Amino acid sequence: MFEVVLVRHGQSVWNKENLFTGWKDVELSEKGIEEAIHAGELLKEHGYQFDEAYTSVLKRAIKTCWLALESSDQMFIPVTRAWQLNERHYGGLTGKNKKETAEKYGEEQLLKWRRSYSTLPPLLEEDNPYYQEMSDHYARVGIKNVPKAESLATTVDRLVPFWENDIAPKIKAGKKILIAAHGNSLRALIKHIANISEEDIIKLEIPTGSPLVYKLDEKLNAVESFYLKDL
Amino acid sequence: MFEVVLVRHGQSVWNKENLFTGWKDVELSEKGIEEAIHAGELLKEHGYQFDEAYTSVLKRAIKTCWLALESSDQMFIPVTRAWQLNERHYGGLTGKNKKETAEKYGEEQLLKWRRSYSTLPPLLEEDNPYYQEMSDHYARVGIKNVPKAESLATTVDRLVPFWENDIAPKIKAGKKILIAAHGNSLRALIKHIANISEEDIIKLEIPTGSPLVYKLDEKLNAVESFYLKDL
Repeated sequence: MFEVVLVRHGQSVWNKENLFTGWKDVELSEKGIEEAIHAGELLKEHGYQFDEAYTSVLKRAIKTCWLALESSDQMFIPVTRAWQLNERHYGGLTGKNKKETAEKYGEEQLLKWRRSYSTLPPLLEEDNPYYQEMSDHYARVGIKNVPKAESLATTVDRLVPFWENDIAPKIKAGKKILIAAHGNSLRALIKHIANISEEDIIKLEIPTGSPLVYKLDEKLNAVESFYLKDL
Repeated sequence: MFEVVLVRHGQSVWNKENLFTGWKDVELSEKGIEEAIHAGELLKEHGYQFDEAYTSVLKRAIKTCWLALESSDQMFIPVTRAWQLNERHYGGLTGKNKKETAEKYGEEQLLKWRRSYSTLPPLLEEDNPYYQEMSDHYARVGIKNVPKAESLATTVDRLVPFWENDIAPKIKAGKKILIAAHGNSLRALIKHIANISEEDIIKLEIPTGSPLVYKLDEKLNAVESFYLKDL
């Protein structure tokens, strides 16, 4: 029996303001920092020791990872940052709140973007106030072919090969892995390992900063899952 | 012309109490946290952008690295933790203050341990109050052949091959590298790149939390060095 532990980053300053964030690289809020520290305390309390950690290239996930490793006293383990674990890219919705979006595009279209598995949001274009900053940032990060928008379907498409090629072989080799990532990149991973339908995965809500354990069979299919806080 | 930037970790809680620390994994003090944040601010102010960072497996260096990357807004770069960048292992002196050591072994012997290039301190033995904790910890970290004591000479012996095989090729390939490490592992590195004598390297004092730039020629021999704070 194998396992992997997932944690969604703590609340960010944009979660708090209810803005579409995606690939905009925003900070954790004070509450998010506390959530991340508490995640590590839970890991420690339940004796979770990892061989490696993975996170995205977004600071809200990286810092969640750092704080959880610090409060569980395992700062020395290797941490791999991978853009494939980034949040879904919200394209032209980046930086907008749900109210603005509903007013501009209509409630129905907003729901479709939020609740459809494969509908792409509008692309990130130069008229978005964050376009230049994000272009400059990702050029600096060194990621080629940064998406201009992603659906959950295209998020799955870039996440699953990374899981299969980089993380899964380590788990099969017996390594204990922690993944600190985002609501939609974790949905994408859970869809894959727990074989959840397109309709159901969209409805799965993952709480922030709460370690989620997946027990996996020899093919790394999920056989059981639970939140550490519920033990 | 190549370069590398070195930073000695901020003040630790044991530096503050004037205890031999070595491989004991102690926290940064509040002052040490501030120093690390300020190191990152200096890096940012002077436009230092890195491709990768290296640090030890000791939390005071790892956290210095994290905080400097955070305050210079480059948390996304890969960070490699390597025991070869650890502080010199102070063996049986671990956890003792300079006064106790002088009383037990004499002032002359203490000076010899502190100021000699190749004299080993007494080995870490089971009667040291930190023996069990450190043995357990390094078994968990997964380091084979943990030393029982190191001189600066043996520190050089384990650091230089790591520099030559892992870091130097990246610098020669044009990568900008930050190294967050310790007083004696940085002495060991500086001895190597700046070709400093055994007598002189022992006298070199590196301030905590202060980014130190080395400009290197095509063979990675130092041609110039300066502290960013002095610019």
